[in-house]
Order: sequence, then C-alpha cells, then structure tokens
Amino acid sequence: MIRAGIVGGTGYTGVELLRLLLPHPEVEVQVITSRAEAGERVDAHFPNLRGVCDLSYTAPDPLVLTQLDVVFFATPHGVAMDSAPELLAQDVRVIDLGADFRLANPEVFAQWYGMAHRAPDVLREARYGLPEYYREIIAQSRLIANPGCYPTAVILGLAPLLEAGLLQQETLVADCKSGVSGAGRTGKVHLIVPEAADSVNAYGVSGHRHRPEIEAILSEISGNNIELQFTPHLMPMIRGIHATLYGRLRQPMSDANLQAVFAERYAQEPFVDVMPFGSHPATRSVRGANVCRIAVHQPRPGQVVVLSVIDNLVKGAAGQAVQNMNRLFALPETTGLTQIALLP
Amino acid sequence: MIRAGIVGGTGYTGVELLRLLLPHPEVEVQVITSRAEAGERVDAHFPNLRGVCDLSYTAPDPLVLTQLDVVFFATPHGVAMDSAPELLAQDVRVIDLGADFRLANPEVFAQWYGMAHRAPDVLREARYGLPEYYREIIAQSRLIANPGCYPTAVILGLAPLLEAGLLQQETLVADCKSGVSGAGRTGKVHLIVPEAADSVNAYGVSGHRHRPEIEAILSEISGNNIELQFTPHLMPMIRGIHATLYGRLRQPMSDANLQAVFAERYAQEPFVDVMPFGSHPATRSVRGANVCRIAVHQPRPGQVVVLSVIDNLVKGAAGQAVQNMNRLFALPETTGLTQIALLP
Amino acid sequence: MIRAGIVGGTGYTGVELLRLLLPHPEVEVQVITSRAEAGERVDAHFPNLRGVCDLSYTAPDPLVLTQLDVVFFATPHGVAMDSAPELLAQDVRVIDLGADFRLANPEVFAQWYGMAHRAPDVLREARYGLPEYYREIIAQSRLIANPGCYPTAVILGLAPLLEAGLLQQETLVADCKSGVSGAGRTGKVHLIVPEAADSVNAYGVSGHRHRPEIEAILSEISGNNIELQFTPHLMPMIRGIHATLYGRLRQPMSDANLQAVFAERYAQEPFVDVMPFGSHPATRSVRGANVCRIAVHQPRPGQVVVLSVIDNLVKGAAGQAVQNMNRLFALPETTGLTQIALLP
Amino acid sequence: MIRAGIVGGTGYTGVELLRLLLPHPEVEVQVITSRAEAGERVDAHFPNLRGVCDLSYTAPDPLVLTQLDVVFFATPHGVAMDSAPELLAQDVRVIDLGADFRLANPEVFAQWYGMAHRAPDVLREARYGLPEYYREIIAQSRLIANPGCYPTAVILGLAPLLEAGLLQQETLVADCKSGVSGAGRTGKVHLIVPEAADSVNAYGVSGHRHRPEIEAILSEISGNNIELQFTPHLMPMIRGIHATLYGRLRQPMSDANLQAVFAERYAQEPFVDVMPFGSHPATRSVRGANVCRIAVHQPRPGQVVVLSVIDNLVKGAAGQAVQNMNRLFALPETTGLTQIALLP
Repeated sequence: MIRAGIVGGTGYTGVELLRLLLPHPEVEVQVITSRAEAGERVDAHFPNLRGVCDLSYTAPDPLVLTQLDVVFFATPHGVAMDSAPELLAQDVRVIDLGADFRLANPEVFAQWYGMAHRAPDVLREARYGLPEYYREIIAQSRLIANPGCYPTAVILGLAPLLEAGLLQQETLVADCKSGVSGAGRTGKVHLIVPEAADSVNAYGVSGHRHRPEIEAILSEISGNNIELQFTPHLMPMIRGIHATLYGRLRQPMSDANLQAVFAERYAQEPFVDVMPFGSHPATRSVRGANVCRIAVHQPRPGQVVVLSVIDNLVKGAAGQAVQNMNRLFALPETTGLTQIALLP
Repeated sequence: MIRAGIVGGTGYTGVELLRLLLPHPEVEVQVITSRAEAGERVDAHFPNLRGVCDLSYTAPDPLVLTQLDVVFFATPHGVAMDSAPELLAQDVRVIDLGADFRLANPEVFAQWYGMAHRAPDVLREARYGLPEYYREIIAQSRLIANPGCYPTAVILGLAPLLEAGLLQQETLVADCKSGVSGAGRTGKVHLIVPEAADSVNAYGVSGHRHRPEIEAILSEISGNNIELQFTPHLMPMIRGIHATLYGRLRQPMSDANLQAVFAERYAQEPFVDVMPFGSHPATRSVRGANVCRIAVHQPRPGQVVVLSVIDNLVKGAAGQAVQNMNRLFALPETTGLTQIALLP
Repeated sequence: MIRAGIVGGTGYTGVELLRLLLPHPEVEVQVITSRAEAGERVDAHFPNLRGVCDLSYTAPDPLVLTQLDVVFFATPHGVAMDSAPELLAQDVRVIDLGADFRLANPEVFAQWYGMAHRAPDVLREARYGLPEYYREIIAQSRLIANPGCYPTAVILGLAPLLEAGLLQQETLVADCKSGVSGAGRTGKVHLIVPEAADSVNAYGVSGHRHRPEIEAILSEISGNNIELQFTPHLMPMIRGIHATLYGRLRQPMSDANLQAVFAERYAQEPFVDVMPFGSHPATRSVRGANVCRIAVHQPRPGQVVVLSVIDNLVKGAAGQAVQNMNRLFALPETTGLTQIALLP
Repeated sequence: MIRAGIVGGTGYTGVELLRLLLPHPEVEVQVITSRAEAGERVDAHFPNLRGVCDLSYTAPDPLVLTQLDVVFFATPHGVAMDSAPELLAQDVRVIDLGADFRLANPEVFAQWYGMAHRAPDVLREARYGLPEYYREIIAQSRLIANPGCYPTAVILGLAPLLEAGLLQQETLVADCKSGVSGAGRTGKVHLIVPEAADSVNAYGVSGHRHRPEIEAILSEISGNNIELQFTPHLMPMIRGIHATLYGRLRQPMSDANLQAVFAERYAQEPFVDVMPFGSHPATRSVRGANVCRIAVHQPRPGQVVVLSVIDNLVKGAAGQAVQNMNRLFALPETTGLTQIALLP
C-alpha cells in the first residue's frame, strides 16, 4: 500500500482527494493536515465522509510526512515550495496541486504570484503533470506540478492542433467558464449565493495567472511561441469548466480530417473523450469524473471551435493528481479513477 | 454474475441504476429498454456513460426479459403490474421502482393512482423494499416494491419513535423538500429553470400519493393507525430530499434517551447515519450516496424534530433498489453501494 | 420632501432601501453611512445603481443625521439602540430594520441576543411595524421596530386564525424556508455557492431569535400565550421566504369559512394577497415586490395548512420599512411601493 | 393614452411587456391574446400580476387589434408576418419581438428560419429597432423589428469600434452566455432544472439564427462586410446575457483612447452604461432593468476584449420594445423604463 499524506485538507481539492483516495485499492491515507483544525475529525467538516473516514486533522509535521511514500499539497501557493525539498531529500514523492512548480521559470512565477520562488533548485526537477503529454517523464519524476484547472481544459483542447502546426498562432482565444468551487472554499463576499448565483461575469480579463501556464506548456508542446487571449468567467454553478477555444486554420481542412486529429491523438487516452464532430459537451457530463470531453466544430471554413469540458476538482485537480500518483508508482493509470459522472 | 434488465431506461432512476449497476462486481446489465429510443445507444442520451456503457435501448420483449435473473422497472405506474406476473412465472426477480406494488390494498391504489390494479394476485406477493425494516422478508421475496423517495426519508426518520410508541399520533407533521429530479425527466413547463430555479413552492398540500404509502408502512411498523400531515415542496436544486419531521412525546424524555432510540435502532445499519444530537444534515452530504442521515432535536421539552436527508435518486430510488437486489441474491448488502457523496 | 438617511448602507437591506427610496416621489435620500466604505461611491459597490444614485458613503455623524426627517437603521443589532435616543430627542423618526426594538421585554432581548439592552427607555416607545396589525399605532409613533423577515411571513399567515381563536395552541408548527440573502451580505463559508447552492438544510432548530418575536406578537394579537415550533431552513436561492404553517382547528370548519377568515381579514390590505383556497404560492411570485401571498388548505378535517410567501428583502425588510415610513409621514401607504414582482 | 395590444401573451416576453406596460403612464394595455388560454385570466398564469392586472386572454381578432394604436407581437417567427400587413393598413403601429422582420433580405430569412417570408412588401418597410443606432429612422417608422437578445448585446458592444474602422474584421469572436429564459417558456427536457442547472454547454456552435442578424446590422453600421464567429452558451441562470467580444486593433491605441471611443459614442444614451476601463460587469447588475453595461479591456497591445451585459427579457426584448414604442409615439425614450435592477 502506498502511504499517502495530504497537506491542506480543509479546501475543496483536499476533500476531493479524500473522496478519491479513500476507496483507492493501493493507497492508505495516513495523514491529513490543517493547522487551524488540528485535532478535529475530518468528517466533522465534511459530513459526506461520515462512516468512511476516521482521520483527524493534524498540524503538518515533517517528521511524520517524511515517513510517507507520497505527499499531496492542496495548499495556496508558497506552501509546497517550503516543504518539498525536505520531503524529496527523504525520497518522498511530492504532488503539488497548487501553483508552486507549474511555471518552470522562477521569474515568471515571481511576476504572476507576487513572491520570489524560494525553492528554485527543486523547481528544476518538477515535471508538469499532464499525463496525456508528459506521461513518460512523469513516471521518472519525484515532484509533480499538478496542472491548473483552466490549463488542463485549454491545453487538452488546443494541443493536438498546435502540435500539428495547424493553427495561426495570433488568433487564439480561450473563453473559459468555471464553477464557483474553482475559487476555493473561502468566505469571500463575491462568492456567496446572493452574489454569484443567477449571474455571470468575467474576471481577470486583463491577465490571469493561468495564462502564462497555458502559454508556456502550449509553446513547449508545439515548439512555437504561443500567445493567446484567455478570459475566465465565473458561472453560477458548483463544479465544472467549459473552455470554448477559437483558432484559425493555416490551410483549409475537411471536418473529417480535423476530427481525425483529435481522434487519433487521444485514441489511447483513458481520460480524454473525443465526442462526435459537432457535439456540444455539457459540464454536467463530467461531474465527479476524471474525464475531459472534447468536441470540434468548423462553423465556417478555416474557423475552428473546440469545446473542452472537465470537472475542475477532478480532472482539473484531485483526479489528475491521483492519475499522476498512479504513474509515479507504476500502477495502471486508471486505478481508483473509474467513477462515473453524476448526472443529473 | 446476475443478469439484470432495466425496463424504462430513459428516466433519471433508469440512468441512475446504470451508474450503480455498471461497476457492480456481481451484475451484468444485459438489457435496457425504451420503446421510444429503441436502437439508440444509451450514451447518446446520457453522455456521462460514454466509455463505460455499450448498451443500446431495445423495445421491451418478454422473451428477452424472461431470460434474466432480475428486472428493474423504472417506469410510470401501470407498467410493472402488466409485466411482473409473466416474469415471476419464469422465476425472474422483479424490483419495481414505480408505485405499482407499494400499496398493499388495491383499492387504496385505485383511489390515489386513478386506475384499477391489474395484478392484485402478485400484489399480494410484493414486499416493501425498505431493508432497515423488512430485511428478512425481502430476502425471501421475489417481487419488491421499492419505496418512494419521500416515504424513505420520512419512514426512516419517524419509525424508531413510533415503533417504540413514544409519539402522540395526532400531532405528526412531515414537511418535505425535494429537488426537481424527483419530478422525473420530463419536459414540463413548471420544471424549467426560469420557473423552478430561485423559487420555492409547496405542492399537493391537500393530498399526495406518498401520504397513504407513508401512513400504511408507519402503521404497520408501529402497530397503530398512523395519520400525518405530509407537505411536499419543490426546491431549486437537482437532487436531494430534506424531511423535517415534527412530533410530540407522550412522556417527557431526555435528549440523551431520545438520541439513544435512534442510535440503537440504526447501530448496525450500513446506510443510515445517525448524526450527533442537534445536528443539521444538508442534502449535499448525501449527494450520489446510498445514505440517509438523520439528526434529532428537542427544541422544547416534549417537542421532537427529526431531520432526515437522502439523495432521492439513490437511497430514495436506484440505490435502495440495488440494496434490495443484493438482499434478493444473498450478496452483502453494501456490494456496489459504497460511493462517497459528492461534496461540494 | 422627506429627508431620509440610511445607517448601514453596504448590506442587502440597505441597498434594497435605496432601490425603493430613490424613485419614491416624496423622499430624498440625503445620507447613507458606512464606516468601512466612507468616501466611496455607493454605485461602485452596487453597480445596479449606476446612473440613478450619486451618493457616496459617509461615516455616521450625529450632527448630520439629526438634520433629517427619518433615519433607517440597516445594521446588526446593537447599533440602532445607541443612536436612536439622540435622534428621537431631535424629533427625527427612526425605523430600525435590525432587531434592537422588536422584543418589548429587554430581558428577552438580552437572552436571545446575548447583550443587555442599552436603551430600555426608548424601547418602551418603540412600536412593532407590521401595518396590517398595528396601523394606527404606527402612525402615532416615532420609533418603529421593523419586523424580522420570518416573523412577517409567519404572523401574517397565522394571526387571522389566532385572532379569531380558531386554533389549538399546542400544535402550531412554522416550517420556514429562506433564500440566502436572509443571512446578509457577509463572506461566510457556509453561504458560498459550492456550499449553499444545490442543497437544503435546516438551522437553528433548537432555537432561533425570530421565535420569541413571533410568539410575543402572536400572543399579543391573540390575547393568548402562543408557543410554536419554528424551524428555519436555508434554501438554494437568493430571495424569498416560504412559510408552511400547521395548526389544528378547535372546532370543525368548512373550507369556505376558513377561506373567509383570511379573505375578510385582509380584504382592505394593499400588500396581502389572499389567493384562492388550495393555491400553492411560489416565492418567485413576490420577487422584488412588497407583497405577502397567502393560501389556505385543509387537507383533512381539522388540519389547517397555511402557505405564506414574501420577498425577505421587501415585505420582509426594506419594503415594509418604507410602508412604515409612509404611515409615519401620513402618506398613502402604497406610495413608492407598487413594483411588480420580477417573474421569471 | 396609447391603446396597446400584445399578441402571444403566455411567453416570457409577453409577461415582461405587461410588467413594463401596466405601470407605464402613457399606455393602456387593452388586449392580450392567447389562442390556447382564451378566456382565462392572465394573473392565473402569472401570479406576480395578481392585483395589478385584470386582463383575460382573448383569441387574436383582427377587428379588435385594428382598433388599437400599437400591437406588440411576442410570438414565434411566422406569426407577425401574417398579421402585420392588415394592421399597418389600418394605421396600427407594429412592434415585432420575434424574428419576422429582423433580416431585411427575405432569402436570408428563408435560409435561417426554414420558411419563405410571406410578407416581403411590409418587410421592406420594417426598421431595426435598436434606438442607439437607428433612433431617427425608428421615429418615422410604423413597423419595428425588435432586435434579438444576443444581437442587442453584441452590436452595442462591437459597433463603436467597427463604426470607427478600428478592428481587423477577420478576427472577431462573440462568445455569448445566456440565461435559460432566452429559450422561452416551453416545456423542453433540456431546459428543466436537473438538466440545465449546475451545468454549462455551448449550442448552435456551427450556426445560430442570430449570427446573420448580427452580421447584417454590423455590416450596415460599419459600411463593411462583417463576419464573426458567434458562439451561444446556455447558463444555469434565469435572466441575463453576457457577451464577451474579441477583436484586434488595426493600429495601436492607448487604453484611454479605446475607452473614449465608447464613452463618447454612448455619452447621451440613457440605456447604455459605459463602465470604467477594465471593469467586469455582471449580468445581475442589469436584472430587470433596461440597461446595457459595457466595459473595455486591452489585455495585450492590440487585443481588445469588450464585455457587454443585458437582461435578455428587458433591453434584449420587452424593454427595448417599449423604448421603441416611446420613439414611435414621440414620448421621452425613458418613459416607463426607469426600473432599477434587482440586486441581489
């Protein structure tokens, strides 16, 4: 059994990790930390876990964490970078669901996150945990930067076309819609029901931290310098990301060939579902499941629209983290990740 | 492997049965029927099942259904009663998620459902599929009347007190709140988002079909003639039932003793969670899970309030049906029913 | 023109007062206070007011407030009691939308609000601002305790029966459902969309501050000592209260006579709508309007169910406050309160 | 008083017209038609109108309609075109909230709406009812094609830039999000709460009827042949449209100059609110109000993002229709349209 720990267990990605890891056949969660709630039972905070989880929160303790096989960080940026070096030194695998290791360039990190990177050495060792594009390199890694939720949806939707050099680079737009859980389990006024229900608004239009992440990875995958306009929106729903991706083809291309690019790229992927050409995936079709569903459109010759949906807490966070853990420990990638989406 | 069929596979209870039965280790769903959609793939209608379900709908065919071990009816009332006799004659177990066999008295059925019962003989053989109260009798049965969603929540919440003769009978009130999926997957104007979202209303205040079901079962369990005021409400949410149950004690009783009534009654029940005295369970704590969470209050001496929450599609329908199937086939009752509720 | 001020202008009742008072033909809002936002424009916080409101927040200043004709307090309890004496001394009318003056007995106030009452003298002068029952006394008052949202819905629904002595007192139940705006504009975790949307839960079952208020007023109106079980629930919606009220008749009574009790009691009331017997009012039918819609049922002989719906921010708060203001200044009671509910 | 009639009074635009016209100081609604509900009171279907509307539905009768001053058609396409000629012949003004007269070219209409246009002569006389761009021509017209909801939001957001020739034409994207009321008051399965709440999906990506309307009007305003990619999305909310509009500047331009284009263009417009540069308008800020709020961003030099929000039933339908009516009858354009948005 893999001995696992979760640092930062009172947020939505933390509790979602528990939902996936508790029934995972090869994992035992031994530690879940929270400074604020140390000593309290986890299921007192998350009653959905009553009867299936006997854990209580503890304060994070290096002596304890270094006894584990893997530690997940479900923390705000700045936390994982301070603990990862010691854990790695003790040969503990680290999967960071936060942002500390997503941007390979520490200066870019500093620019977007407003703090110097305090572990640039281990940052060099980190691998971007998007298995569909970095599967082999993940297996050989010890430190995984679990992708952001928006980047997962956007990269999976655009990379097949950019990899193949099919799109004009200057016309890319990623218009993204997210459920409110993407903002975290935090008592901010703009997230309460009377503010965020029955309303839609964009935010961070002039610059959002996920844009440099998306651009860096798409540039790496495509071998070109990719820039795109990324616009996140807050949706009146709990879970789900819908990315609507716009590009223009360099050359004319039939609908069938366009579809084939995606169908072939993801033919062997257990967690990417390429829907029939012209489909309209709904976020609810992936609620609770570790799946990205993708559909391609060509409304006018040369104009491509890709629709990509994920559950931000699963394929966009905890599920992908478990997928990465499975890779790190040479388990079949789908182990413990076969939940069917909850519909309705 | 248990060979299973689902009659009426385009509604919410049908697709929820698939969500639970497809990964069930002892079941193979061989048939799912729909006259209207015969020939179409199930996952074209329910994209959450893409990749995990290769079934297509067929028209219901007795020759096929009688080859199965068990048939679930997820149909409007009036359907199961016409097919059950032939299936039972061929030794196929029948679990009806509709209302045809819930009311033991065919005249009461006729009164509330507006049609004569067309299979009064097999009705006599039907057993009410609430395992917490009829576990042994279910195991010996061939025909299960799966309880209604409201009755499940109300009976589990009130029966311990009535069984023990603790409540004044004339003061019982069951104020129930249901998500919209309880009304079925049907294109009615009053269920669309602009009508049913961001609003609450009662319905059927003067009489709802679940009232005679509740009263008959509670009378049977308690050995007294129970009448209660049952008021259902439509909530602006998808899944979930919250039953707020009011009664008055015959004799003064401490909070601790009151709690003990529930704690002891359900101590061995895998799917009933008695929360600490004075808790406030939320429906989201059971979303997608086969659990009923119950909490007891005594706001003033003698005044008891019981809060009982379920997912109407799981413990209130498909999950309970699988629980009953497990009983019928002598499997551990929890087989295939260990999903953790999706929160948030 | 009535010169009006609003103390506590960043909450939902404050901004709702503005929505109603800005177009009111006899009022000019001259002051709106907020210590935290002093100096900022109101419409920067509430963009629905862009173009119709040039006010900026100021810190509350007695020298300014005492120049006004009326001051509304849209503040947490404890604020109005400290300012009211000085304002009244300067002959400024005071309407408190908070709880400071709702409970005539300062000891009961202390018990439920956890603080001693600091203005027991002016408390004696306060009048409960439910015009349907205290119209005349309001007109002669200087200090109005605007009723709580739940009490408004419950009292309007039960008082006609209790006034007429028709109900058994020991069987009263008020099962109430409220939209999240009733909890105020405050960044609490349990109010954010991922927590409070798509879920229902009860709260304060063992005791809620609105219960003593309801009981005191119903006792006063009926001339009897009324106790009831009051259970509030949080609904996944923004505005609206739905009160489901249960009682038992002392004597048999026809449906028509029961309906007549309400029809006659409220025949002249501009803001109480008695619907046809057996109706099911929805909260959305009063969204944004200063109306209470009421419907009566008698599901079984002797069992009465009254359904009463209001918008918690209008008839349950700001609208009723304006109605009281109209009384205080001898204006027609409907002045400025004729908004039609927003449906859908 | 203007004698007004509404044809098609059971849909959301019909009842929204009533909400706006009933308190309109210069209008008397004398007729509201519905074949299906003829003889029934309007407020039996729309209880928000109880107490303010004594009308009953009638079957549409040319003898009655031709006695009026203005008739609003709140009907599916194909209805207004059959009645408008006779009404115009009797000098009755016609405002069609449907699609019959929005596309000047009858062949384009036939292509997108699947039916030949049956009144091409009066089509020639129709004027597009977007007052911000066609104010003078509307005043002289007798037949108004009230714009579609999406076109209103998109055109108001893009036209200032296109009018001024500032955008590259080939890179325009309009990513639009709509509340469910935009789909009408119709009992379709995909609109019920369990399907459309807590989920987001695109629809009509490959072609939607509002695209040719947007393109024709933007082409007319700009004097160029405008094509854009238009993607509508269904949002889990009741009212509101959020248009996120993307374009690239032909020439570099400062943020201040970009803002000035909008500020100057709409300086005198009572119903267009240009927010500070870089704002993020939310749909709830216009709920129930006849306003379009617009904000401009330039995330990278040359990349323009315009955010434009309306209430689809007000500025996107009934409110704009009343605005047009005010023009037709030489009333101040804001008459009866000063409702403040309902927030929260």
